[in-house]
Amino acid sequence: MVVVMAPEATESDIQNVVTLVETAGGEAFVSRGVNRTIVGLVGDSTRFGTLNLRGQRGVGDVIRITAPYKLVSRENHPERTVVHVGGVPIGPGTMTLIAGPCAVETPDQTLQAALMAQRSGATLLRGGAYKPRTSPYAFQGLGAAGLKILADVRAETGMPVVTEVVDARDVELVAQYADMLQIGTRNTQNFALLQAAGEAGKPVMLKRGMSGTIEEWLMSAEYIAQRGNLDIVLCERGIRTFEKATRNTLDISAVPVAQRLSHLPVIVDPSHSGGRRDLVLPLTAAAIAVGADGVIIDVHPHPESALCDGPQALVDTDLEELAALVRTLPQAVGRALTEVVAV
Amino acid sequence: MVVVMAPEATESDIQNVVTLVETAGGEAFVSRGVNRTIVGLVGDSTRFGTLNLRGQRGVGDVIRITAPYKLVSRENHPERTVVHVGGVPIGPGTMTLIAGPCAVETPDQTLQAALMAQRSGATLLRGGAYKPRTSPYAFQGLGAAGLKILADVRAETGMPVVTEVVDARDVELVAQYADMLQIGTRNTQNFALLQAAGEAGKPVMLKRGMSGTIEEWLMSAEYIAQRGNLDIVLCERGIRTFEKATRNTLDISAVPVAQRLSHLPVIVDPSHSGGRRDLVLPLTAAAIAVGADGVIIDVHPHPESALCDGPQALVDTDLEELAALVRTLPQAVGRALTEVVAV
Amino acid sequence: MVVVMAPEATESDIQNVVTLVETAGGEAFVSRGVNRTIVGLVGDSTRFGTLNLRGQRGVGDVIRITAPYKLVSRENHPERTVVHVGGVPIGPGTMTLIAGPCAVETPDQTLQAALMAQRSGATLLRGGAYKPRTSPYAFQGLGAAGLKILADVRAETGMPVVTEVVDARDVELVAQYADMLQIGTRNTQNFALLQAAGEAGKPVMLKRGMSGTIEEWLMSAEYIAQRGNLDIVLCERGIRTFEKATRNTLDISAVPVAQRLSHLPVIVDPSHSGGRRDLVLPLTAAAIAVGADGVIIDVHPHPESALCDGPQALVDTDLEELAALVRTLPQAVGRALTEVVAV
Amino acid sequence: MVVVMAPEATESDIQNVVTLVETAGGEAFVSRGVNRTIVGLVGDSTRFGTLNLRGQRGVGDVIRITAPYKLVSRENHPERTVVHVGGVPIGPGTMTLIAGPCAVETPDQTLQAALMAQRSGATLLRGGAYKPRTSPYAFQGLGAAGLKILADVRAETGMPVVTEVVDARDVELVAQYADMLQIGTRNTQNFALLQAAGEAGKPVMLKRGMSGTIEEWLMSAEYIAQRGNLDIVLCERGIRTFEKATRNTLDISAVPVAQRLSHLPVIVDPSHSGGRRDLVLPLTAAAIAVGADGVIIDVHPHPESALCDGPQALVDTDLEELAALVRTLPQAVGRALTEVVAV
Repeated sequence: MVVVMAPEATESDIQNVVTLVETAGGEAFVSRGVNRTIVGLVGDSTRFGTLNLRGQRGVGDVIRITAPYKLVSRENHPERTVVHVGGVPIGPGTMTLIAGPCAVETPDQTLQAALMAQRSGATLLRGGAYKPRTSPYAFQGLGAAGLKILADVRAETGMPVVTEVVDARDVELVAQYADMLQIGTRNTQNFALLQAAGEAGKPVMLKRGMSGTIEEWLMSAEYIAQRGNLDIVLCERGIRTFEKATRNTLDISAVPVAQRLSHLPVIVDPSHSGGRRDLVLPLTAAAIAVGADGVIIDVHPHPESALCDGPQALVDTDLEELAALVRTLPQAVGRALTEVVAV
Repeated sequence: MVVVMAPEATESDIQNVVTLVETAGGEAFVSRGVNRTIVGLVGDSTRFGTLNLRGQRGVGDVIRITAPYKLVSRENHPERTVVHVGGVPIGPGTMTLIAGPCAVETPDQTLQAALMAQRSGATLLRGGAYKPRTSPYAFQGLGAAGLKILADVRAETGMPVVTEVVDARDVELVAQYADMLQIGTRNTQNFALLQAAGEAGKPVMLKRGMSGTIEEWLMSAEYIAQRGNLDIVLCERGIRTFEKATRNTLDISAVPVAQRLSHLPVIVDPSHSGGRRDLVLPLTAAAIAVGADGVIIDVHPHPESALCDGPQALVDTDLEELAALVRTLPQAVGRALTEVVAV
Repeated sequence: MVVVMAPEATESDIQNVVTLVETAGGEAFVSRGVNRTIVGLVGDSTRFGTLNLRGQRGVGDVIRITAPYKLVSRENHPERTVVHVGGVPIGPGTMTLIAGPCAVETPDQTLQAALMAQRSGATLLRGGAYKPRTSPYAFQGLGAAGLKILADVRAETGMPVVTEVVDARDVELVAQYADMLQIGTRNTQNFALLQAAGEAGKPVMLKRGMSGTIEEWLMSAEYIAQRGNLDIVLCERGIRTFEKATRNTLDISAVPVAQRLSHLPVIVDPSHSGGRRDLVLPLTAAAIAVGADGVIIDVHPHPESALCDGPQALVDTDLEELAALVRTLPQAVGRALTEVVAV
Repeated sequence: MVVVMAPEATESDIQNVVTLVETAGGEAFVSRGVNRTIVGLVGDSTRFGTLNLRGQRGVGDVIRITAPYKLVSRENHPERTVVHVGGVPIGPGTMTLIAGPCAVETPDQTLQAALMAQRSGATLLRGGAYKPRTSPYAFQGLGAAGLKILADVRAETGMPVVTEVVDARDVELVAQYADMLQIGTRNTQNFALLQAAGEAGKPVMLKRGMSGTIEEWLMSAEYIAQRGNLDIVLCERGIRTFEKATRNTLDISAVPVAQRLSHLPVIVDPSHSGGRRDLVLPLTAAAIAVGADGVIIDVHPHPESALCDGPQALVDTDLEELAALVRTLPQAVGRALTEVVAV
């Protein structure tokens, strides 16, 4: 950490900082410039965090040098992690396709979507039983009934299930059905939910907050990790910007940046990023090329009657192109599509 | 609602939209332009919402004309609402000062902060017992013990208490102590929490999401209202932008905009917007002048040892200036400071 | 400046940085931490700027401690500046109202608008002869003919003129007519124009870029100052964010922040910030209360036939309220409306 | 166009809008809803643009349905355009690599960088003689001397030259040397420069404004096109967002979106987007996969002594990987690297 003293800081203000740091067991190196004095801090930065250095007299700024997360940091864990979801690996070397309906509506719709997904090369099934919706008047998901449908479709297709949980009180129930819990973009800083998910004994897919920095995203992952669960998959799903041509702005750079900062796998959601069916395939290609460890895609047998996000779902006629893309592009960039594996 | 057909839409695509609308009990007016055809929808827009018009063949865009919220809308409730918190009014005609420590740390610190607040003109006490923190390693609040401290300080000072709730499972407990529940910026779209707060029988202060639009903010208020609680106070607390000179960018225009769209009172948090003590008073003045129904301010007897957000808390020497401001400026713009009232 | 070495930096990488700094006449203080080494630089930061420290092997980050601008910095010039425009002061202690039509359309429209402005308390006339428009098919202004109209209206009303220049080739001509040159938000980093304006011998009003940081805005002012012109008025006019309820998001905090960083006066444009007539008065009140040295407002005698930005112009019936506001609110916050002064 | 009347609009307000539209030669279709009336406009939208509909009494909102640009629109020109730069094609079917130094510093540095670029597969040379810099104290480019160096290197390598122009007064001179003029992100709405470039008789590469919407970008292209020049290459170079881990946020979706809206080729600048050398190759891969018609990359023989943007330049050891990428990935997605062609 570096403490930058204000121009008007006195010698005693500087000494106060030095004393605080030393009392906390650290070392303080003072560099006196013409206009400003800076104090370099050496030692355990967690302890410095409790000193409220920014609130001290004469302190202009405090600059953190090291990352505030530890368990998910690649600095402390250089090898990249592979997370296994019902036996399906997500991580370096492979490209895993997760697909399914945005929302579970009926047994038939879910099964049809799962079969579409499987034909395209998907090895994991996505599908929402609990839907966080901006409007209280919109379809909120089937709840527990939706979870049962997902379990039935898993039994029929052999695809492990990824499904969202939106309330800490539901974590236990959802974890009984899901192979991986999904935390959505509106809940990325719902810390109670993160902690509950961290204790549920299942892998967790953590979407980036729509206005969350990469650092905040990793801090949210740290909340999960701190409860003893390091089976976390990060999912970039677009951030909120001034541009309205797309629903969100896919931050494609976030994939390599997060992979350098963290050992966790990073996947991309091209459906919710663009919010437009015609962008799903190009963005999937971009995600694979940039190095994403997987993609998660909405498919729907009848998007014109979908209860949620129909306009972004791939339909039957898109699937051949998707299948070709995920079977050829990963190889062109040195990886392989994750194929069905024995659980 | 207006449906804009894509340039390549066929006559049968147009007819499909018309039929869907009519089946839902609405009327559809078709205007055929040179390049595009538009269909104007007349009728109950809630019903149209379930038609998935955007997912139909040949539909280019669907433009909503009316607001998606109802209960909190001013269109349906032209008179602005006054919310009473333990007897203290927030709403048109007055300017209510809410102040106190960001986090409850000790009985003495909380009492000292409350007395500072009261001397400045505050009639409501703020203070957090549950703190949502970006880092799992940061101070998370005293929890239930903090609530008891707040209740003791209320007994001693007579100030009703505003305090945050971050988990739906805690709502019942917090509502036993609080005079107004606070929902923070990270939970603005935590719908389970909004619904629980809507059922708790206490007024709710709803902060705007740090990247939430004004419309989304009102939709979140609608979630609370839908559970039967219209005692909602909206709080603008700065949005996330590219500018890093301030912690957030106070969207001062949001105050009059929200007041025109909704009948609910709108207050401003100048402490968390700027994140800098030297900006609290100028931003408080701006908030009063723009027409805010109140302001909520951090004060701390010893900010250099604060466990949370010390750098933005007002200190003893600022209070005289704050007191002068809140006693003169509201009058200059046609309102009056809310004075202590019998509960 | 502080150089943060990467975790993998070698001793020779550190030594390379130290040598570079010392060769440039500076001193380098090395603090070796557990994970990272930091090097504090003391000396002339302008020289360090040419060392390309960020490009050296083993360097993780370079953190600037001092502001990159000098001439406009308050650190080097603590007293706030008063800029005189045709004899009318803008700066501390006063609140100057600048008003007039967005675009000069006809002699009569301009004169009527000027008289409206004057009745409201304005002492400076705004009006555009050159209009930067997003569309090549929109009205681009009257050009030189518009300048002559402005000069005629000045002669008739005694109001000095503020008008925009959009092309370095026009600066000389515009400076013959204008009392203050205006640089618009799309040209804030048009450095050729900034330099030409800096040499024109007239005060310059510099709008903030719609996505410019406060630091970049001050750097643009530095471009003007570097050509020998310190008569610069900064104008906050809203920034681009995700919120679409207003045309731009007025960054009201930018006023006190810029006033602390720079000695230059800072004014606010409430018309272009909100882009809505109903927000002009509330935002004007906020600007005055936060401490702005002036406001610049669109007025139009017949906004329904305005060729540019009609929906945001104040009309006759608003003027009484504006006049009351600018005559009472500045006093309530310790300043006075700038009254007409002898030129 | 659709005019949405305000809830309080009277019958005479509606009639006024209808009359205005009809007088301008259009047709107006009125749909009366429960809360709102909408008026659908059919006819020449350019004429409607001058009616100031938004400024009329009782008008709540005016919604544009068709794009405001014409010449660059794909709706009017469905086939995608190939732009030839000194004989090198940029457009559908190929992937063109443009590379070279950010700034021209010396003849030797420029030649070395060009040879590096050529070895990697580049067929066009980039290099700046005029540099727009945020700070007036930073290196501003060699100017005319730099142009001569570029011409010499072109003679030696056969690579046509792409170089930036920042001032309308320099367009004629730059056009004598350049094979394609570059307009930078800070000048995307410098309309005088756009018009001058449109008249220079050379292809123009137009970067997206760092806070420009895709629509504004296309409107800026329309300014160039309107002067008779349709040889325009659009360049996505990252937008400004809240995320600071990268210099800008590469909006990868903008490539397919712009290609659907416009017939012009769209390329990507992965160097300036990320601002980090370690991101250049992943972002190049993403750009190729998403369908970009080319990429433009900074290379430098000695980035540690570069006068501009050294930290983002590729160096010798990166080139083999770049060469492999541009020779294999385009084929995997159905395109081919543009090879050297006879001029």
